[in-house]
Amino acid sequence: MQPTTFEDRLHRCQDALADREVDALVLFPSSNLYYLTGFSEEPGERHLFAFVTPTGFALVAPTMYADQIVAATYVDDVDTWDDGDDPMAVVCDVLDRLGVDGGEVLLDDRMFAQFSLDLQEALPDASFGLASEVIDDLRITKDETELAALREAGRVSDAASEAVRALGADAVGMTETELADRIRDELASRGGDGVSFEPVVGSGPNGALPHHRHGDRTIEAGEPVVLDFGTTVDGYPGDQTRTMVFGGDPPEGYAAVHGIVREALEAAIDAVEPGVTAGAVDAAARSVVEEAGYGERFIHRTGHGLGLDVHEAPYIVAGNDQVLEPGMVHSVEPGIYLEGEYGVRIEDIVVVTEDGCDRLNHSPRTWETP
Amino acid sequence: MQPTTFEDRLHRCQDALADREVDALVLFPSSNLYYLTGFSEEPGERHLFAFVTPTGFALVAPTMYADQIVAATYVDDVDTWDDGDDPMAVVCDVLDRLGVDGGEVLLDDRMFAQFSLDLQEALPDASFGLASEVIDDLRITKDETELAALREAGRVSDAASEAVRALGADAVGMTETELADRIRDELASRGGDGVSFEPVVGSGPNGALPHHRHGDRTIEAGEPVVLDFGTTVDGYPGDQTRTMVFGGDPPEGYAAVHGIVREALEAAIDAVEPGVTAGAVDAAARSVVEEAGYGERFIHRTGHGLGLDVHEAPYIVAGNDQVLEPGMVHSVEPGIYLEGEYGVRIEDIVVVTEDGCDRLNHSPRTWETP
Repeated sequence: MQPTTFEDRLHRCQDALADREVDALVLFPSSNLYYLTGFSEEPGERHLFAFVTPTGFALVAPTMYADQIVAATYVDDVDTWDDGDDPMAVVCDVLDRLGVDGGEVLLDDRMFAQFSLDLQEALPDASFGLASEVIDDLRITKDETELAALREAGRVSDAASEAVRALGADAVGMTETELADRIRDELASRGGDGVSFEPVVGSGPNGALPHHRHGDRTIEAGEPVVLDFGTTVDGYPGDQTRTMVFGGDPPEGYAAVHGIVREALEAAIDAVEPGVTAGAVDAAARSVVEEAGYGERFIHRTGHGLGLDVHEAPYIVAGNDQVLEPGMVHSVEPGIYLEGEYGVRIEDIVVVTEDGCDRLNHSPRTWETP
Repeated sequence: MQPTTFEDRLHRCQDALADREVDALVLFPSSNLYYLTGFSEEPGERHLFAFVTPTGFALVAPTMYADQIVAATYVDDVDTWDDGDDPMAVVCDVLDRLGVDGGEVLLDDRMFAQFSLDLQEALPDASFGLASEVIDDLRITKDETELAALREAGRVSDAASEAVRALGADAVGMTETELADRIRDELASRGGDGVSFEPVVGSGPNGALPHHRHGDRTIEAGEPVVLDFGTTVDGYPGDQTRTMVFGGDPPEGYAAVHGIVREALEAAIDAVEPGVTAGAVDAAARSVVEEAGYGERFIHRTGHGLGLDVHEAPYIVAGNDQVLEPGMVHSVEPGIYLEGEYGVRIEDIVVVTEDGCDRLNHSPRTWETP
């Protein structure tokens, strides 16, 4: 990503603030801060803010970050504070300089309460909202560089999925955590930068807990295993799910349940095109599952947007009137969860095109393994 | 950790709330939530709160987490909401049931603004503070189980540090990121659970940027490399720093700078004992560096506490009047940063004992490699 890309985004953000009569946006180490500045850092316990107004910008950071920020970004000046000093004194000077003393102030959605309470105290006359109200409109459609990274993350995640499938009966007897470590290695050896989230290896009944990650449970022959993982490429994540059965015949009825989830996946992907709402895509998947009699077992939304954050707008959920547009990227991941038995989820990422969508995942979606 | 350990902590927290006349504590996926319930989850975009009052407790979570929470913790009932529904309707019912309609409410320090603003809107008559005001007093001293995990994390981190040192001239020509990947493997193969934070491999001038992680720069013979990393054991992190020189003679003056940092480390560790303030430990390290004429180049605090979070109380920083007590665990990590040339930092973790402190790191602190 070129520094000018980040500076262009900042200017588009400032224009959006002016249009919407917002007085200031306050960011914190997050994907929003990276999106506008190119500076990437984990959130921590030290005060680190970017202030964006319709015509101004300032960055407040601990002294020890200053050289790094100047070297890595288009930012020339950093307002610094030293460990042991009061960072809010520097913040108040900056607010003064930028002319922010109230009005509408938008906080980074992921700003920690320890910082948002400080800002609320420093600006007692302001009303506070969330940065996403302005910045999601910028981030929700991806440019070609972002799409290239997302495609590559999809390719690597797919290749790792195929490698896991190829294990066949060799996966039987591995613990979930052992298979998760194997997935990590498969992703890294194919060019991925770590995992985009802690992998899900949900064997048997653990697969019925949609947010189970992995544990000491041993994978048995013939039991369905939910495999949900991805890697990151140039800061953009992959995320795909397959449900596979290793080294034996699956439980009775399983093939039919898998078929329903797969049909729901296809129905939702068929529904994705510009002008359709996110809620309508959710309904397309859900109606397939409901008609098959498993509506109560599909206990989560159909999908989420994907970009610098693994979960971001647009959320593919009932009631979301967000209209899909070309360049939006989101998951489609229906699932059926049978408590105490197993779960089935199948997930692909799609990018909305001018007349439909493209999938970013192409690995086999069947449950059979060699 | 036994479920009763978590339940005991909850009761101690409730007693502390009663003592301090706090009406409610609201936690969010964080180490605080884990500390009190045993439920561990990454913070996300969905509303998930634990409400603790002097006599009550409730957990609000998305439906798909409920089975998992009940299975993993002492919590029997979860107040759930489905994707597409309004989570704050459930939150308001729970607040009603617990009798919380104002007063003093403490928010998880790391609660995202998108949730703290919702709670502030739901409780317009409350005054808001931070959970750390109560919970840090509980978390700051570690019990034997916690100390055992911290010791083991130190042992594994030390062993990986020795393996890196043993590379000697073989480290020359590796990129920082390649060495970071090697560190990751060394930690995992010795029983660590991943890295406790993204490793720092700061070669040459990159070492002068204290929060540089690692990049494409190639390690050259004779240049100082700051190596700051650790792994996690049973949820508790290691964190140690050594500065090494591989395959050649270091720059003129380097050995003296390294010696000053090492002297500062020893002075601070000598100062650690019950009854001493965190600020006094910082002063012990800083005065050594200042007397040597490098005060301006020691651009951060001397240390931080270590527990479920890699950075937590007590912070070893100027002006901190926190009195050290047996069972507290913190880093001691003085550094000198010469912009454009190199950095030197040496870090050990210590646990405060009845009459001084024990180190949790024992790997060699010299800069020489074989």
